[in-house]
Amino acid sequence: MTTGTVWGLGIGPGDPELITVKALRLLQAAPVVAYPAPLGGDSFARTIVGQWLGRGQAEIVIEVPMEIAPEPAQAAYDRASLQIARELDQGRDVAVLCQGDPFFYGSFMYLFGRLAGQYRVEIVPGVSSLGAAAAALQAPLAARNDVLAVLPGPLPEAELARRLEDVDAAAIIKLGRHFGKVRRVLDRLGLADRARYVERATLGQQRLLPLELVDPGQVPYFSMILVHRRGVAWR
Amino acid sequence: MTTGTVWGLGIGPGDPELITVKALRLLQAAPVVAYPAPLGGDSFARTIVGQWLGRGQAEIVIEVPMEIAPEPAQAAYDRASLQIARELDQGRDVAVLCQGDPFFYGSFMYLFGRLAGQYRVEIVPGVSSLGAAAAALQAPLAARNDVLAVLPGPLPEAELARRLEDVDAAAIIKLGRHFGKVRRVLDRLGLADRARYVERATLGQQRLLPLELVDPGQVPYFSMILVHRRGVAWR
Repeated sequence: MTTGTVWGLGIGPGDPELITVKALRLLQAAPVVAYPAPLGGDSFARTIVGQWLGRGQAEIVIEVPMEIAPEPAQAAYDRASLQIARELDQGRDVAVLCQGDPFFYGSFMYLFGRLAGQYRVEIVPGVSSLGAAAAALQAPLAARNDVLAVLPGPLPEAELARRLEDVDAAAIIKLGRHFGKVRRVLDRLGLADRARYVERATLGQQRLLPLELVDPGQVPYFSMILVHRRGVAWR
Repeated sequence: MTTGTVWGLGIGPGDPELITVKALRLLQAAPVVAYPAPLGGDSFARTIVGQWLGRGQAEIVIEVPMEIAPEPAQAAYDRASLQIARELDQGRDVAVLCQGDPFFYGSFMYLFGRLAGQYRVEIVPGVSSLGAAAAALQAPLAARNDVLAVLPGPLPEAELARRLEDVDAAAIIKLGRHFGKVRRVLDRLGLADRARYVERATLGQQRLLPLELVDPGQVPYFSMILVHRRGVAWR
């Protein structure tokens, strides 16, 4: 029997219509659909594609603990890859839902690392949060020979400052509790008025704000600051 | 009469199925479709969506001279925005085709800059060449707290070297005739075996190569090198 294929499907940043025609076709054809969810919580990825799923599709929930320590999460991916492998061994394809783009800071790489050696794995790229944030803010990310950096919010303050000083444009991702630090850096560099904050881009609860209107205590993980040294054509 | 809306539609990197459900819906509903094309040549963007277009849709070809000098291109965007504005003034929406993502190094920003002040402009993000290249190479772009840089190939050799030394991962875009220089830099930094070359990702003519197998005289503009300092799980 031929073993099944793992499809790592980029499903986009949140708006269900931002899935590609290709990912939608493969999603609906897959006998098994797997997706991450916080322990005991709802899966955001499952919510995005809920309207596209059929009754006959089996589902594998990858319950990922949200603690900071990486150990429990790694055990969860170990378990999930065994569960997925059992389906593949039965000849069934498994579609793995990946918010945004599978290989842009996505957790899919943990399953990919465990399965790609023994099984056929195919990746369908998706709309990333980067493009979604720029579209929502009506702010071009980068053009011509701009250098663009993607900087995770957890980086140390001095490193963020050094890097922001040295690029034309940047996306600061994974803000959450790091917002206050990032804002201090942007203020100090005189870049605050060339930066904008976007939260839950493309979703109904999307919020676009100048930095001074953001409450640092209410910043979710799925938020981003875009900044461009030359300024941007903000609405 | 209400004026029309400009829809900047990300149509993805090349595979027609990598358009989003949203962009496809808006594309098919638009009475007028505009797209760039080289002077006297075929439009790649038009080719990508050809199968989705209907007979009743008017088309505006934005003929962009391919010279290096920016002046003639700017005149072309001036003309195109006037042409688009005439449609908008008649109450007709205009869908502008944007390869990849509209705001990720896209020429759409030139139209956006000319039209956004006077007309309603909405952007639909698309799958960028970045995610497409990573998917094709089966190589995660970045994860966890990685710093990722997007570096245009035309940057000076010393600047490329300095920046590549200082990041976890990079995408070097717009390679074309700059491939030889980029390869020298990667060789010198000892990063050549952690880099891979991808040409025309997601198209039938897609090519994935280690750097030493690339003919520097045959590198198209639509090619990219991905590199990750820690190495990547290459197939």
